[in-house]
Amino acid sequence: MTPDETIRLFAKTLENLEKWMEKAGEYAKSRGFEVDVLSTSRLAPDAFSFIQQVQSACDQAKYLGAYAAGQKPPTHPDTEQNFAELRERIRTVKTYLGTVQAKDVAGADERKVAPNWMGGRWLPGHDYRVEMAVPNFFFHVTMAYAILRHNGVPLGKSDFLGTLD
Amino acid sequence: MTPDETIRLFAKTLENLEKWMEKAGEYAKSRGFEVDVLSTSRLAPDAFSFIQQVQSACDQAKYLGAYAAGQKPPTHPDTEQNFAELRERIRTVKTYLGTVQAKDVAGADERKVAPNWMGGRWLPGHDYRVEMAVPNFFFHVTMAYAILRHNGVPLGKSDFLGTLD
Repeated sequence: MTPDETIRLFAKTLENLEKWMEKAGEYAKSRGFEVDVLSTSRLAPDAFSFIQQVQSACDQAKYLGAYAAGQKPPTHPDTEQNFAELRERIRTVKTYLGTVQAKDVAGADERKVAPNWMGGRWLPGHDYRVEMAVPNFFFHVTMAYAILRHNGVPLGKSDFLGTLD
Repeated sequence: MTPDETIRLFAKTLENLEKWMEKAGEYAKSRGFEVDVLSTSRLAPDAFSFIQQVQSACDQAKYLGAYAAGQKPPTHPDTEQNFAELRERIRTVKTYLGTVQAKDVAGADERKVAPNWMGGRWLPGHDYRVEMAVPNFFFHVTMAYAILRHNGVPLGKSDFLGTLD
């Protein structure tokens, strides 16, 4: 799985996430509640809400794209408060990932990646991608899925995986 | 991320999963309940239980190892009923993955992978690994994590990621 393939897998999975949110909207309508009550749902009082899980998944995808291409990541101030705004965030990140081309990330695994939280230290791009970006990204999308599933949204594994390319 | 690196990432994450279960045991003890009440916990009535999530994560890891090495996957009849048996299952799969060497999986991405459920059809090893094994594996470990977290086990992102290599 190359850097480019990882970015495509993240983009596809974000697209799946948006479809789960669409299904959540249909479910909410059929049950007569506002879908946005799910925005602040969380699996435990000290766990991330649905909003935060989606923001984090978007960030993991965005940062991988930017670090892999040696670009400054676009800024998103985490102001989303509802499904409509979260879906817009997802689409913005998908559009950004679409601008990162295979040729831009050809040498990504050899780049130094120095996220802010590392306080000046850095990781090789390869290790960042394999040991951090992949597990972190799938963690947050699955937690978002889990919150919807726990609240009754009818989702299954084929929704999670989406269409095989 | 090569086939070998994917297998190592899965093995490390299974090791993390076993540590979450150990923390669940400590938490259960501190709260005075049997940890095995968590075995049948699930996030929704028609979602997999903790037992099934762990079994599925183990299977995703085992199948990737076996398919990548062109071996027949070892059989596990899914008879686990408690934490002790699940931890044994995890260790068995980790041991199996340890027998799959980098040289065994060198040509894995070009192998034909024909899981039973595909009814005679096959996928290139690369596509199986990237589009199925990676998302599926992280789906099931994260759902296992989510069940523990939802039931109060004190876990955080560093537990999920484990130690960076």
